[in-house]
Amino acid sequence: MKSKIRVSENKICPLEHAVNTISGKWKIPIVWHLHHGIKKPTDFYSKIAGINRRVLTRQLKEMEESGIINKTITRLKPLEVEYQLTSVGDQLVQSLWSLNNWGEVLLQEKIVR
Amino acid sequence: MKSKIRVSENKICPLEHAVNTISGKWKIPIVWHLHHGIKKPTDFYSKIAGINRRVLTRQLKEMEESGIINKTITRLKPLEVEYQLTSVGDQLVQSLWSLNNWGEVLLQEKIVR
Repeated sequence: MKSKIRVSENKICPLEHAVNTISGKWKIPIVWHLHHGIKKPTDFYSKIAGINRRVLTRQLKEMEESGIINKTITRLKPLEVEYQLTSVGDQLVQSLWSLNNWGEVLLQEKIVR
Repeated sequence: MKSKIRVSENKICPLEHAVNTISGKWKIPIVWHLHHGIKKPTDFYSKIAGINRRVLTRQLKEMEESGIINKTITRLKPLEVEYQLTSVGDQLVQSLWSLNNWGEVLLQEKIVR
């Protein structure tokens, strides 16, 4: 299993690529809410405190370009769109659990120290 | 298992905390090389292309503060230090594999598209 991390130009490519892809401020909450059935951009405002339209639009666009989410036009006039996780995005949800568990260990360690 | 991700103030706390902790530009390569026995700051220069002393020092300090690595003074004059992964840092190495595998899927998807 360990041979799977490839070091190219002294970088850990797949892992760094993964972290860079999800490290935008709101991307993890967006993935999380999409996973739980939120589809419309307007619904994200009530779910993610502090996010604004401009930032949300940019993050969604970046995530679409990364291949994590798909955009579907559901109505033309007025324009309405919906987002959903791609198959790759769904796989991300699964792989985030291990990191989440580590985050819990880290937070617990912080409390203990 | 799904109940483990806690949403607090509309943020996924442990997961975001984990991602923020490792999202510094060189932190993943540093963890990786520490895991493979690199201990001295000077040895990182030959292993991680493009990293400079100031950045390396800052990243190591942040990682120490996060509880991922420990610093040991091995010699006083001239001062020599060594770093190693803490128990929490070791657990991170394990949990990065899942994300690395997802990174591979993502890169593969990029080639196909």
